[in-house]
Amino acid sequence: MSILVVGSVAFDTIATPSGQVKDILGGAATYFALAASYFTEVRVVAVVGEDFTPEHEAVLKNRGVDTRGIERTQGKTFRWGGQYLDNLNDAKTDFTELNVFEKFQPRIPKEYSDTQILFLANIHPTLQAAVRLEMDGVRLTGGDTMNFWIKGTPRELAETLKLVNVLLINDTETKMLAGEKNLPRAARKVLAMGPSALVVKHGEYGATIFFREGAFGIGSHPFRAPALPIEEVKDPTGAGDSFAGGFMGYLASQGEGDISREVLKRALFYGGVMGSFAVERFGTERLQNLTRGEIDARFQVFRELTHLE
Amino acid sequence: MSILVVGSVAFDTIATPSGQVKDILGGAATYFALAASYFTEVRVVAVVGEDFTPEHEAVLKNRGVDTRGIERTQGKTFRWGGQYLDNLNDAKTDFTELNVFEKFQPRIPKEYSDTQILFLANIHPTLQAAVRLEMDGVRLTGGDTMNFWIKGTPRELAETLKLVNVLLINDTETKMLAGEKNLPRAARKVLAMGPSALVVKHGEYGATIFFREGAFGIGSHPFRAPALPIEEVKDPTGAGDSFAGGFMGYLASQGEGDISREVLKRALFYGGVMGSFAVERFGTERLQNLTRGEIDARFQVFRELTHLE
Repeated sequence: MSILVVGSVAFDTIATPSGQVKDILGGAATYFALAASYFTEVRVVAVVGEDFTPEHEAVLKNRGVDTRGIERTQGKTFRWGGQYLDNLNDAKTDFTELNVFEKFQPRIPKEYSDTQILFLANIHPTLQAAVRLEMDGVRLTGGDTMNFWIKGTPRELAETLKLVNVLLINDTETKMLAGEKNLPRAARKVLAMGPSALVVKHGEYGATIFFREGAFGIGSHPFRAPALPIEEVKDPTGAGDSFAGGFMGYLASQGEGDISREVLKRALFYGGVMGSFAVERFGTERLQNLTRGEIDARFQVFRELTHLE
Repeated sequence: MSILVVGSVAFDTIATPSGQVKDILGGAATYFALAASYFTEVRVVAVVGEDFTPEHEAVLKNRGVDTRGIERTQGKTFRWGGQYLDNLNDAKTDFTELNVFEKFQPRIPKEYSDTQILFLANIHPTLQAAVRLEMDGVRLTGGDTMNFWIKGTPRELAETLKLVNVLLINDTETKMLAGEKNLPRAARKVLAMGPSALVVKHGEYGATIFFREGAFGIGSHPFRAPALPIEEVKDPTGAGDSFAGGFMGYLASQGEGDISREVLKRALFYGGVMGSFAVERFGTERLQNLTRGEIDARFQVFRELTHLE
């Protein structure tokens, strides 16, 4: 099934213990689209400035991503700068220049109206909700959010959560959203806000999917996918968005039938796999030239990592 | 095979969000022995004071633990007080009264000399080494240590690590011991110090076992066991020692043949299982009255938690 991601395209300036880069292509929608492109047909709605060149667009097009929903407008593309010098798990933001992203009003091209799976990357919850309501034919909606919206726009976010089937956030965000420090209890509170499933990303420890009682008709006990211990984390930027792209992309690739528990479990593994590739190089480099064979080989490594005979 | 644990018996005063208790039976050797007692014959070498009553000893004896190596001496038993009010993963120590533990000189009863598996719980590395050298017939030695010895007695610890086959420590300790923030790289450095295998305990995220190249003849790629997300963590005290007891106890139960990769993998799961039981009640309460059926049922839950068809 086709998948549409709505979110940011950005130019990132990043410093990690492995080096530094300036103004490289990034943004949640970019990482998500590249990761998902190995599984299914991907469409993007985003906004960029005059500094977004055909070469930048080619990064997505070379992976078969439909870029007709990327709106060009006057001004500069969203820029973010950050460093991971002390801690590879949390970025310290140096600067955020919203630029054209500040007035982003997602416009869905007519050609995208038959989209079956929607992913609302981390943007203002009111924009997320508007997109979801406009795309009334979608079968499954995934979503992301962040501390900034959890603290700043809780009522708007609560409305959006009613429209999201699968929410993908990290441990800290889950606990903050629920106002509860115990993870399974926090997960239960978040599921009560709307989503049928909650994927909590644990960084180097993998991810856990929690289900609302009765959701998908598959039982409510959680499932956990481990992550591979990685010796060379060059750049953690985009790992979470790549996880989401692998997770949602694999779901989309499984056709129009009911979503089984086994498919959701495998999707969680594929999320971890795509996240693990993303961090091996700066920016989107590693996600640009993978093969499905490499992806499935790593899937097997992840599977073996916790598999008992 | 029989297993001997050398370590602390203590009285703990603990505050957690679930309540508080004063002077309850604890200590690394106690948690380890109780957890291991569900798998094999367990012996203890420790020191206690005059305040250690027959009722305290009965907690161990009721589980069939051989307490002949628990030395009674003048004075009070080791006391520790701590709280987990802000963070269930890290205790804030309120007080440490070493008491009789300050002059602990482990004495191995003659009857223990045929012990086949040894676990050196967290005590001074020089004492750990002395015990290991005295027990020259053991087939496998496990060990623990902590930040205090890593910082304070690095040379003594380095000597002890040459005598330990399997080291069980947590993420922070691994990184501190190696002087390296990346976990797999840190693990490699620790393995170069002596141990054939390193078990890194991740708390609520489970544990990973790393192998030295060629160790046990089973290949060097790591294995990870997840932990069950637990809604009710009453008291995290002793979780790591209970993990070690489950891990070493299961290994001991598997007989005298070579240790296979599959046995080590299952041991890692059993470690997580025993740790997860320990935290459900204050102190050792939950570990006193489990059944092997309950343990194996939870083993299956842990297995299902990451199992793909």
